[in-house]
Amino acid sequence: MIADSAFPQTLTYDPETDRPQEECGVFAVYGSEDAAVLTALGLHALQHRGQESCGIATHDGSRFHNERYLGLVGENFASPDLPQRLPGRVAIGHARYSTQGASVMRNVQPLYSDIRGGGIALAHNGNLTNARVLREEMVAKGAIFQSTSDSEVVLHLAAQSTKNKLTNRVLHALKQIEGAFAFVVLVNDRIIAARDPYGIRPLVMGELPDGGTVFASETCALDMVGARLVREIDPGEAVLVNENGMRSERFAPERPARLCAFEYIYFARPDSVMGGRSVYEARKQMGRELAMENPVDVDVVIPVPDSGVPAAIGYAEASGIPFELGIIRSHFVGRTFIQPTQDRRDLSVRRKHSANAAAVRGKRVLLIDDSIVRGTTSLKIVRMMREAGAAEVHFRSACPPIKFPDFYGIDMAGQAELIAANMEVEEMAQKLEADSLAFLSVDGLYQAVIGEPRNNRLPQLADHYFTGHYPTRLVDHDRDLSAKEFQLSLLVDA
Amino acid sequence: MIADSAFPQTLTYDPETDRPQEECGVFAVYGSEDAAVLTALGLHALQHRGQESCGIATHDGSRFHNERYLGLVGENFASPDLPQRLPGRVAIGHARYSTQGASVMRNVQPLYSDIRGGGIALAHNGNLTNARVLREEMVAKGAIFQSTSDSEVVLHLAAQSTKNKLTNRVLHALKQIEGAFAFVVLVNDRIIAARDPYGIRPLVMGELPDGGTVFASETCALDMVGARLVREIDPGEAVLVNENGMRSERFAPERPARLCAFEYIYFARPDSVMGGRSVYEARKQMGRELAMENPVDVDVVIPVPDSGVPAAIGYAEASGIPFELGIIRSHFVGRTFIQPTQDRRDLSVRRKHSANAAAVRGKRVLLIDDSIVRGTTSLKIVRMMREAGAAEVHFRSACPPIKFPDFYGIDMAGQAELIAANMEVEEMAQKLEADSLAFLSVDGLYQAVIGEPRNNRLPQLADHYFTGHYPTRLVDHDRDLSAKEFQLSLLVDA
Amino acid sequence: MIADSAFPQTLTYDPETDRPQEECGVFAVYGSEDAAVLTALGLHALQHRGQESCGIATHDGSRFHNERYLGLVGENFASPDLPQRLPGRVAIGHARYSTQGASVMRNVQPLYSDIRGGGIALAHNGNLTNARVLREEMVAKGAIFQSTSDSEVVLHLAAQSTKNKLTNRVLHALKQIEGAFAFVVLVNDRIIAARDPYGIRPLVMGELPDGGTVFASETCALDMVGARLVREIDPGEAVLVNENGMRSERFAPERPARLCAFEYIYFARPDSVMGGRSVYEARKQMGRELAMENPVDVDVVIPVPDSGVPAAIGYAEASGIPFELGIIRSHFVGRTFIQPTQDRRDLSVRRKHSANAAAVRGKRVLLIDDSIVRGTTSLKIVRMMREAGAAEVHFRSACPPIKFPDFYGIDMAGQAELIAANMEVEEMAQKLEADSLAFLSVDGLYQAVIGEPRNNRLPQLADHYFTGHYPTRLVDHDRDLSAKEFQLSLLVDA
Amino acid sequence: MIADSAFPQTLTYDPETDRPQEECGVFAVYGSEDAAVLTALGLHALQHRGQESCGIATHDGSRFHNERYLGLVGENFASPDLPQRLPGRVAIGHARYSTQGASVMRNVQPLYSDIRGGGIALAHNGNLTNARVLREEMVAKGAIFQSTSDSEVVLHLAAQSTKNKLTNRVLHALKQIEGAFAFVVLVNDRIIAARDPYGIRPLVMGELPDGGTVFASETCALDMVGARLVREIDPGEAVLVNENGMRSERFAPERPARLCAFEYIYFARPDSVMGGRSVYEARKQMGRELAMENPVDVDVVIPVPDSGVPAAIGYAEASGIPFELGIIRSHFVGRTFIQPTQDRRDLSVRRKHSANAAAVRGKRVLLIDDSIVRGTTSLKIVRMMREAGAAEVHFRSACPPIKFPDFYGIDMAGQAELIAANMEVEEMAQKLEADSLAFLSVDGLYQAVIGEPRNNRLPQLADHYFTGHYPTRLVDHDRDLSAKEFQLSLLVDA
Repeated sequence: MIADSAFPQTLTYDPETDRPQEECGVFAVYGSEDAAVLTALGLHALQHRGQESCGIATHDGSRFHNERYLGLVGENFASPDLPQRLPGRVAIGHARYSTQGASVMRNVQPLYSDIRGGGIALAHNGNLTNARVLREEMVAKGAIFQSTSDSEVVLHLAAQSTKNKLTNRVLHALKQIEGAFAFVVLVNDRIIAARDPYGIRPLVMGELPDGGTVFASETCALDMVGARLVREIDPGEAVLVNENGMRSERFAPERPARLCAFEYIYFARPDSVMGGRSVYEARKQMGRELAMENPVDVDVVIPVPDSGVPAAIGYAEASGIPFELGIIRSHFVGRTFIQPTQDRRDLSVRRKHSANAAAVRGKRVLLIDDSIVRGTTSLKIVRMMREAGAAEVHFRSACPPIKFPDFYGIDMAGQAELIAANMEVEEMAQKLEADSLAFLSVDGLYQAVIGEPRNNRLPQLADHYFTGHYPTRLVDHDRDLSAKEFQLSLLVDA
Repeated sequence: MIADSAFPQTLTYDPETDRPQEECGVFAVYGSEDAAVLTALGLHALQHRGQESCGIATHDGSRFHNERYLGLVGENFASPDLPQRLPGRVAIGHARYSTQGASVMRNVQPLYSDIRGGGIALAHNGNLTNARVLREEMVAKGAIFQSTSDSEVVLHLAAQSTKNKLTNRVLHALKQIEGAFAFVVLVNDRIIAARDPYGIRPLVMGELPDGGTVFASETCALDMVGARLVREIDPGEAVLVNENGMRSERFAPERPARLCAFEYIYFARPDSVMGGRSVYEARKQMGRELAMENPVDVDVVIPVPDSGVPAAIGYAEASGIPFELGIIRSHFVGRTFIQPTQDRRDLSVRRKHSANAAAVRGKRVLLIDDSIVRGTTSLKIVRMMREAGAAEVHFRSACPPIKFPDFYGIDMAGQAELIAANMEVEEMAQKLEADSLAFLSVDGLYQAVIGEPRNNRLPQLADHYFTGHYPTRLVDHDRDLSAKEFQLSLLVDA
Repeated sequence: MIADSAFPQTLTYDPETDRPQEECGVFAVYGSEDAAVLTALGLHALQHRGQESCGIATHDGSRFHNERYLGLVGENFASPDLPQRLPGRVAIGHARYSTQGASVMRNVQPLYSDIRGGGIALAHNGNLTNARVLREEMVAKGAIFQSTSDSEVVLHLAAQSTKNKLTNRVLHALKQIEGAFAFVVLVNDRIIAARDPYGIRPLVMGELPDGGTVFASETCALDMVGARLVREIDPGEAVLVNENGMRSERFAPERPARLCAFEYIYFARPDSVMGGRSVYEARKQMGRELAMENPVDVDVVIPVPDSGVPAAIGYAEASGIPFELGIIRSHFVGRTFIQPTQDRRDLSVRRKHSANAAAVRGKRVLLIDDSIVRGTTSLKIVRMMREAGAAEVHFRSACPPIKFPDFYGIDMAGQAELIAANMEVEEMAQKLEADSLAFLSVDGLYQAVIGEPRNNRLPQLADHYFTGHYPTRLVDHDRDLSAKEFQLSLLVDA
Repeated sequence: MIADSAFPQTLTYDPETDRPQEECGVFAVYGSEDAAVLTALGLHALQHRGQESCGIATHDGSRFHNERYLGLVGENFASPDLPQRLPGRVAIGHARYSTQGASVMRNVQPLYSDIRGGGIALAHNGNLTNARVLREEMVAKGAIFQSTSDSEVVLHLAAQSTKNKLTNRVLHALKQIEGAFAFVVLVNDRIIAARDPYGIRPLVMGELPDGGTVFASETCALDMVGARLVREIDPGEAVLVNENGMRSERFAPERPARLCAFEYIYFARPDSVMGGRSVYEARKQMGRELAMENPVDVDVVIPVPDSGVPAAIGYAEASGIPFELGIIRSHFVGRTFIQPTQDRRDLSVRRKHSANAAAVRGKRVLLIDDSIVRGTTSLKIVRMMREAGAAEVHFRSACPPIKFPDFYGIDMAGQAELIAANMEVEEMAQKLEADSLAFLSVDGLYQAVIGEPRNNRLPQLADHYFTGHYPTRLVDHDRDLSAKEFQLSLLVDA
């Protein structure tokens, strides 16, 4: 997405759940009779990264096939005619996050275009930080842009490259873009999988039992299709697969990965492994670190479901305090119900969560959540605990205070809304009506994820949320491109 | 439902998840401006008891209003025009379980009929055991039946009663039926809430902050609408509410309730309270009893999500063995995907559950599930654990072996498919490929639920699943009414 | 339909097109492998009689199958799996008129019920005039009514009959009802086709090339399935078909048919033959009679499409004045568009009709319509002609002035809204802004339809619209059953 | 559409009705508060030119708004929130023809793109004959193509133009394209309406009562919105409207229009006026010319509805033979029904048309149709007449024999399927089983349309269907660009 304004947009952030949104998941298969079916399964395993829309493109040796839908993978790509609809031994797929309100078909991926030398279909997880500047340059030179997606820039760069071979033109394009990205690209019947120079977004490679190659945002998608993890794609590396085999190309200097910390904290599925570290273990360790950094005298440890569960298990284990399901999550969420006229309680949280009074009543309760964004839902849950009879309600965040916006594809509340960007901890505790509040430290986070403290000269993660240190230049943002001017001709889609 | 055959049907049982299905949840409001809105919220809280269809009927003082839909409550009853669509200060609602295949609009409740003295709308959770015999008698006398639902019998009995007042005719009807039921009935602008003579199905009464009365299958629905639990409806009791207040009538002799054991084991939401006992606490205690009865030397306790979680917490607590999320559940289930041609693994379980290798690899694993029905899913999960690297895989069921079918509204595999009805434990362990297998004892179950052993002369629960002792006569079943003949004229709906 | 009030309801009458609505079309097949497919085709040919909903019931020798839908036949019964969905060599079907607003699934036919001796499925065109009185009696005796349809009365009468055989019980029921009806009934695997004692509603019998029997509301449905017209069902006759052949039963005395005049005027398809008379020829002759009765000096004869076309052809032929398409009808009607803020013209007529200025400009125009109900659309069309440049606009109705409501299944504006019930012709002409206005005389109508004048002692048609002489008693209406009381317990469906 | 093969495609031609398909209708409004609403109404009036999809783009002074849908205008653009959804005083709209099978969202118009200087939204009726050559050139220079639509070429040409002003760049693009087109283009908040150099596709300009300007494919759309016809856009003319008023630009030399003959014969709505000639009058005159050229001794003249009606009226008038509705058209078409197993008759024609035996039996019948394409439906209708008892069946086409394909946006059967391209008239008569067959002559067509014979040096119409004389070069076709190669990288859409 090219942001619609100079500052990170908040259009799609869901204020009701008060959780950030990952942009996407990508998946690709090279060399399997089941390319489309496996891609559908892989996307299903990545569905937590995006539920708004999904798409699969294949190449059957002579033609491209592309289907893109609003809705879930299981609703659109589960039927027995899939191999007929999307034939070919090579496929890429994309699952996209949930927007609120109107659904924008135009931005659903994979994008496709005819360019010199053939066709390109592209699926992208991440956000480019110089897309608007590049777009302006290309528009000035006569390019036409038909979507608001930053990914369209890559198609144009490849189309305008003077390189001879189509794959080289795609590599040429990758050299010109900045920001965070995991790309899987169908270049006619070949695949290119590429990861941004700093390794902010994840991308792994696996091998199918019958020898085919797969790429995925997370290892849980490899598990789903029965593929073996071969390795992660390196930062700045593009892996090309064609009938002659696989080769690796570098489009940026070698550099250790700085994976987005929020992948460990919230986005990735707990059964995925990132940077060699189990996400589940990292989260449990965040809970243990939190227990060591911030002990509290309570009767029960209660996770905010579902994302707070592993940290709560870790906290309970380290502290010896019993772990209890004090909040029950409904699986039938649906739309926001009309509010009763007589009722002054907030239903938005009750639709999804209910207090389990049996585990709470009369107890000193410690709530563990993975993070606190605006704090609005946290406040509702604290109140729900008190209504259910909790004697005390303490709150702990399994990540440090979030003070800075993201520019790499995470949709979060605006900085003005980030509670930790605007208050001290004590003030926050009052705001959340909690008897106490504490956050994991930045070093505690590093300990949990990589087993050592932050290297301040060369941080091992993309931790700008907490530190304000962004791993890349922010070209679009720094040029302070006037949003107003830029939008003048921008289409507002239905 | 009148069963389509003499033996309990298995049409709607879901063999893929291998879990029994509750038939329904009911909810009612008397005396609130928000009657329809509160009923929608109450049904939403009861949605775990039935996701196929939902309906709400109201009475506005002069007329009935009724809306019935296939689909979730949140999809059909959440919009702001609900008070206009369903006006009135009195409402009843029904949520129905999920059938496989065709959706049968004709059986969606509340049922409505015009009878002598006015109109009746009725919502029913449970199953009548003499409905077919009664139906035959009434058909012989000139009644017409337009659905296959056993609940239609009640409308006819009330219509044919010679009692003077409409409410008395409904009570007269209740005296003639046998089996398990929780009814909420709109009798013009009055409400009758009634529970079967043995109290097999649950039904509670609550009070709204502004004085209105609510009835619900579970207390979690009272919590959702902010109502205070007043008490449970007694077995054989009907509570009538009208503008003059509330009165209680008995249509069957006083007798302690024998609530269905499976409400505690699986159906009810953990934050509900039944028979004064927290369902969550009962389940945790089942885990503790299991730990005491069947200790095993393992490294981790892993729940089969989500229904095995409380028992696993209890087991872990009692045994001191760490509790781990070794299985990750996907929230994006959708339809069954097409199977890849090259793949011999069973995808049906993987769509919903994934092994979390980090918590499993190299470990001696103990799986805790709430129950084992056919064992098919249990086997898949055992295998999934081994594939993920478990050193040993042990299995424990938090309820006793299920050997007998239900006739009171629970949709379960047929007796021939019930693994415990056909094998000894040792053989089952082999079948499930588990290193060991054990079940909670019947007395252990009673201890967990009511804190004392089974009273064999007067059992405190409906425990026929395990013991074969049915609390009521089984009139339809005993007469062995020929299913074939009976069905001759039965409609097959689309 | 049991009317919701003592006077003819106007709920479903479409004031925008200002045309009456036929209630339904019925079709049945006995003894064909293609029973369901032929029934779908027959209903498609009868779709002009009802577009709201459609249903087909079959019997496969041992069981009933029933599918009912809101929407068109072609949307619901055209797919190749129809024979599997609705197996059997015997079928009945029903197409129902279009209601405005909410769709009432509960009243969609065929109705089905289990009664003593088997099952009955029933499709009904018409309206019973003593249904409410019968219903009250039966409710008093303990019957339950689950729909607002008057057809449900027939099921109850059959169920309560003391006759021995099921078919005899249906005949017994027919003897007790009054009003207008064409019934096709599936009595287990037999068919009964019956027409009301006065023959107000049409019903014909045909023979398939392979010997099967069909029944239909109109001959155009016989043509569609390739069946030969055998004869019309007589007034008061029931034809029974089973494996032993066909037999005719009388449930009312012999009497010549008095077919509803509006079948000839508007409802029936022009290619149907009724009472031995081509509907198309009858309508053309109405135009010729009109030309003889009401000559006018104009330049062009213009039909109000489509129903005015045959009369306009007749008028043009008899008068020698050129026939022109001065109004173009759109086939893409859809919903009512939002009105432009700046526009004071009435779009409701323009969505469907446009003036063809080339045929109108500077001409003295004669508009011919089949009838005038409220006159609202007539006025719009007169104005449209003037806007298109007509020098004069004259109007002729090819039927007499409509002054009285119908009680036999035709949904028309209420009497207070019938323009001819409230004004003299001259006043109407002014109201319609027409230079002249005239109606066909009652005798002219009879001449056109049956070739002779009205026999005032024994009228040959049901012509109460024009004369106020109703062919039957109006029991419900005469008892003036208080609508308010009656409705007290009536359900308002969504 | 860029054709998918070197020869005119037949993908979307409907062989069942055997009628050619117009590609599209366009509409635009400048300077009205009701811009979107009027555009919706205008498109509704043009719906006969395309029912597959529809779209409206507006500009609100600072931003574009665009909504595109599969389905009818009335289904998508009739709701009261339209002004909020599509704000602005300037709007363009597009209605697109019906494809069979898959719906291709990607090609639905208006197309939109961001280019240098702002945004462009474009709606196109017609087909470019050098689009593929242009596309190849642009792709070679680095352009990316994201649709298969030939209209995308225009966006690229404008983007690559070196002209300074955005409107001049659009004019520059128009100079480079060949073929047939009527464009309405939103260039930021200005409108450009342009017509191809030969005036093959129609485009008219009108004035709203409040002074706004509208453009439309046909005058019937002006009538719908209450606009006055100002004039036709000239061939090779572009009309630009902005806040300073209107100006006309030429992008091709002056030349009299050669409007597509099929607009008069079949496509345009009869109440439209084209080239100063009423389409209805032209069609009636075709019938009169046909009567003079080809008299035949018959009893009745019967139109093939609806498109044959005006010519049949003209024929009847000129010949003195009675005009009769011998074929009744159903308005409830829906999908193709499953064929009965016992039935050998062709249902495809019967679903839509029924013989009116009363008008046919024993008569010598003359069928009049607007044209004969493959002849398949003509044959079915001849047979239907004989089955209905016609003594003789003669057939007349109100246009000359169609022998050559179209390259300007008309979707017709391929040349190999055109019956007149492969047979003499006598042979055709036998094939159609007609007692006689005749076609209007080319000069008769010219007489009917323009009142004078064809000027063979400078034909006044685009009449290549009959003569093989194409008004333009056919660049793509003449280069015989290998379809196979071209398609290699083309996307096959879902």
